[in-house]
Amino acid sequence: MNASRPSVHPVEAPPPVATDAAAEIPMPRGRMKDIQGMPGTRGSLALRLSQFALSVVALCFMASTSDFPSVTAFRCLVAAAGLQSLWSFSLAIIDIYAILVKRSLRNSIIISIFTMGDGITSTLIFAAACASAGITVLIGNDLNDCGENHCSRFETATAMAFMSWFAVSPSFLLNFWTLASK
Amino acid sequence: MNASRPSVHPVEAPPPVATDAAAEIPMPRGRMKDIQGMPGTRGSLALRLSQFALSVVALCFMASTSDFPSVTAFRCLVAAAGLQSLWSFSLAIIDIYAILVKRSLRNSIIISIFTMGDGITSTLIFAAACASAGITVLIGNDLNDCGENHCSRFETATAMAFMSWFAVSPSFLLNFWTLASK
Repeated sequence: MNASRPSVHPVEAPPPVATDAAAEIPMPRGRMKDIQGMPGTRGSLALRLSQFALSVVALCFMASTSDFPSVTAFRCLVAAAGLQSLWSFSLAIIDIYAILVKRSLRNSIIISIFTMGDGITSTLIFAAACASAGITVLIGNDLNDCGENHCSRFETATAMAFMSWFAVSPSFLLNFWTLASK
Repeated sequence: MNASRPSVHPVEAPPPVATDAAAEIPMPRGRMKDIQGMPGTRGSLALRLSQFALSVVALCFMASTSDFPSVTAFRCLVAAAGLQSLWSFSLAIIDIYAILVKRSLRNSIIISIFTMGDGITSTLIFAAACASAGITVLIGNDLNDCGENHCSRFETATAMAFMSWFAVSPSFLLNFWTLASK
């Protein structure tokens, strides 16, 4: 901020080399170039919030059916969506903190923890979504047994879980890319 | 090799800078350091062959059951395992060629094609394996209906598909890492 204010006392001003160097650095707190979606950016916060919202919706739709505990894949979907929502909520809070205090999250250890967590949660929710999709298609198309089952709720929960996976994948790939390009 | 031989004619010897530079390069054909599993290495060839074998076994076990076409997820597994076996077989042939002629496959375009192909085939086979696992568990544990179904063959095919995915994932991650660290 001082670099952009006109100097009132030119005699006491710092040497011009220092001001040039400061003007060349866009973010003076040691930030590298930010690709939106990397940890600590607004893009990452948006991804985290959408992951959280979608997994919570999937969890609610699946848990609102009365017969989900009788199918293992649906129980797995509830568990995976719960884990995903907790993880995304925690990371969203960390992103909000990083944006508010303008701190960079470019530490190797932090990014490797984020990458591993994203990889594990995204694999789990994708696996649960695929298993639920397999069973929903089996009930709906192969057996034509949607009359006595909550097919629409199962389908909505599965679709939301897939969309949550679509929102986690960019976070995982961007974190992995950041880790590899260090 | 010349660098380690004592120089007999010191006057006619090439300048020492050139010999030092030649001695520092371990592989003179322009290879970067090889991590086993990257394209063109023996580790990569082993991964490709195991992917091919496992997906072929999954395909054969699933296709040998008489009632797999009645379930969508099992048809998907057959399709995904077929695609995976074709892709892995092609890449195994490319790896054998690269090993035989000692060529490096470090071209950015080649590696990005390999990464995309690995990502797509591994996602497909993982999705099909999860869907089949969901239905197999539904038949075996939730409905206790293994008497009139080929549960053991379904389980074997699903397990082989999962192991094939386990073998594709290192290839995908190593290719992505190579691409990002360029």
